[in-house]
Formats: sequence, C-alpha cells, structure tokens
Amino acid sequence: MKHQTAAILVIGNEVLSGRTREANAYYAAGKLFASGCKLGEIAVVPDTAQAIVSSLNRLRAQFDAVITSGGIGPTHDDITMDSVAEAFGVGVNEHRFIVQAMTDYYGEEAMNDGRRRMTRVPDGASLIRCEKTIAPGARISNVYILAGVPYIFESQLDSILGDFGDSPYQRIEVEVALAESHFSKQLAAIQEQFMDIEIGSYPGRCGPKACGKICLSSQDTKRLKRATDAVNKMLATVITT
Amino acid sequence: MKHQTAAILVIGNEVLSGRTREANAYYAAGKLFASGCKLGEIAVVPDTAQAIVSSLNRLRAQFDAVITSGGIGPTHDDITMDSVAEAFGVGVNEHRFIVQAMTDYYGEEAMNDGRRRMTRVPDGASLIRCEKTIAPGARISNVYILAGVPYIFESQLDSILGDFGDSPYQRIEVEVALAESHFSKQLAAIQEQFMDIEIGSYPGRCGPKACGKICLSSQDTKRLKRATDAVNKMLATVITT
Repeated sequence: MKHQTAAILVIGNEVLSGRTREANAYYAAGKLFASGCKLGEIAVVPDTAQAIVSSLNRLRAQFDAVITSGGIGPTHDDITMDSVAEAFGVGVNEHRFIVQAMTDYYGEEAMNDGRRRMTRVPDGASLIRCEKTIAPGARISNVYILAGVPYIFESQLDSILGDFGDSPYQRIEVEVALAESHFSKQLAAIQEQFMDIEIGSYPGRCGPKACGKICLSSQDTKRLKRATDAVNKMLATVITT
Repeated sequence: MKHQTAAILVIGNEVLSGRTREANAYYAAGKLFASGCKLGEIAVVPDTAQAIVSSLNRLRAQFDAVITSGGIGPTHDDITMDSVAEAFGVGVNEHRFIVQAMTDYYGEEAMNDGRRRMTRVPDGASLIRCEKTIAPGARISNVYILAGVPYIFESQLDSILGDFGDSPYQRIEVEVALAESHFSKQLAAIQEQFMDIEIGSYPGRCGPKACGKICLSSQDTKRLKRATDAVNKMLATVITT
C-alpha cells in the first residue's frame, strides 16, 4: 500500500531564524504532487527534542507518512535520530552496516566521535541510502528521516518516492486578465459543480493591471478537462458583460 | 507587552502542491529575528476550515502571537477570515470602515459580491492597513491575519512589527574549512558552556572539499562575542592537530 497522504517536518533553527530559505519542502511538495500523494502539512520546528517529538507524533497519527528534513549530521544540534526514537519509544544505536560503510570509506583511524554519531539510527529502522553521501537516512514505520543539506535530501527523497502515491496529480493553469472580484461568485459556482477538483485563484499584477491565474488540479484527467472548460466558458462570459 | 514568541501559519494549497515556493514565512522569519521575537514554528496547511482552525488553536495557545498568511481574497478558496472567527467562536461581518474605503476607491457600482466578501472580518477584530492595498488585514486577540500576495504581506507585516520583540537577535557566522565530524565533540562542549547562545553548524562543500559555517545567535552581544571567541579558539586547535 502506497502512502496517499503525507506531511513534511522540517527541523532547523536556521529556517526559523530567517538565515536559510527553506528549499527541501518545496522540492518534496512538487515531487509528491507528481507522484499522486497529497501533502497535507509542512511544519518547521526548532532543534529541540520536545518540538520534534510532539510534532512528529501529531503528524504521523494524522497522515499516512511523514518525511523529516534535517538534524542528522554529527554536531550537537543534530538530534533528529534521537528525537524520532523517543517519539517511537525505542532506543538509538549504531547500525552495523553504517559503521562498516563509513569505516570502509574513511578508514578506521578517521572514525572519530562525530562520524560514530552518524552511524546511530532508531532501533528497528531500515536505511535510506543514496549516491550523494555515505551516512544514510533511515525509515521507521511511516517516518522517513532525511538529511537537511538539499542535494542529499533530494537524492534521498528520489530514492523513496516509489512508496508514495498511485495516480499522479495534474494541474492546469488558466491565465486571467481580470481582478478576482469580477469572477469570484461564478468560480465558486463551478467549484460547487466540481467538488472533486481543487480550484484555486491566485491574483497578481501585469504592470498596473490586475491579472492572475486560476489553477485546477486533480488525479482525474477527464474531470480536470471538464472543469477547465467550465472555467474558460465562464471567463468568456465575464469578459463580455 | 510585546510578543516574545510567535508562530507563522501559512494557508495555501498552492504551497502544498509544490506550485508556489513559500516566500512570506521566510520574509517574516528574518524580520522577527531582527526584532527580537523568537519564531517557534512555521506551519503550512491547506485551504480547509478544519486544518486552519485546529492549527490556529494549537499555535495561539502555544505562542505569544500567530501571524497568518493567505486566504483573505474574494474567491471561494479564501476562507481565512471565516476560519479564524470559527477558532475564536465569533461571527464574521462586514466592517463599516472597509466598506467605506472600498466604496470610495472603486465606486458604489463596482462593489460586487467579491469585493463585499473582502470587507468581512471576525467580530471584534481591528484592522491592519498598509499602503499596498485597500482591503486590510485584521487582528483579533493575538492573531494577525495577513494577505498571501508577497508584496502585500510584507507591507502589512512591516506595519505590525512594532508589536514584536524587545531586544534584537544578532547572528555571527564563522567560516569553517573542515568536515563537521572533526569538531563536533569540541563544539558540543562549547554549547554546554554557553547554554544561552544558540549554536548551529551547517555543512557545505567548497568544490570537492567539506566546508561550512558555525552560526551563533543571541540577544546578548557580549555573550555572543565570548562564545564566538571560544569557537575560533577551538577551531585553531583542531586545525593544527
């Protein structure tokens, strides 16, 4: 059974302090959409066990799966493995496979405390390996623990995407050269007709004039086309009255 | 009393579907840091009353203030005013001031259903006005309801920043030309000595070599300098052994 809903839990003071613009949730959101998995929430929390444990327990109960980003390096602020283990009530221990892989790569004498720290995963977890790094992510139950460094996160995410979604979402965007208030009532009526289609309206500006986009998305290509036809037909009427 | 802690609640299917890269929380995070208000969580939720109400009630109980972004336009997917009102158990009604301002601006005959919809705020709310738009945001208790369109959000946020923080946070970044595992133990010891300073380590790559940054932040300039000195001293030792 693939995961039909998911949440992303970003762990990082650097995002909350405005130092770093979050990139991994954005990457994952696009990939999950294309995989057909509904992303239900993104939460960004600080590097504290309390915040991670409570958010993770809330999200893993609410969604089919949770993907975490960040906090799996060797420094004191990397506490995701410990916090996930705490959330599940299990221990954290060095994983024989990771110790071996890192020792082979770095050499016995280079296996310092920092690297040893990166061999630890929650008891019972399986490993999420990718080409970009020796130290893997981990999966325990419906929680996927990925790195925060974007090129590693992306590679690890790509390696687990097969677990998510059955039928890809598709999106159609309709350009609109009108202020939203001119068609909001009519668009609401279309949404009523097509409750299975997600319809959003996003305003913008073309120079001094209001313009925007109406976005429709669905896993059902035929229904998506019918709803888009209805929107285009409605807009033609609005423009001419 | 200014708000010392805050959360940001981003309301928008367009972020969760990967269509739009979130920008407002990033902008607000930097401003709150510079204002001395601790941002404790960012949550991105869909355009559903259930998600907005439950997240808002959780966050407003946990933090001094909550800033919402998005969902205050005239279309059917703009349900933030209604959802915030629901969270507080109050009604939503047209605000006399907004009706007047919009009527003055657009003219009586242009006050269609969509524009009327944008005059509604939760009962008891005060208005958050800015130069960029006629339709204002609103504040009720410790919740600030701002627009999703970035240039409007930014202008509205700037207008409320005076409510947040007393003593600005400062950040110092120390460049490191080493893999984190070489100094993680020593950095943990410094963190133990300076529990009041937030110390994070962020790895990166300089070409094929590991490098990164150690970031220190605090509201106390003297302590921040002392901790930074300790980090620099430690790094000099690591490099030479």
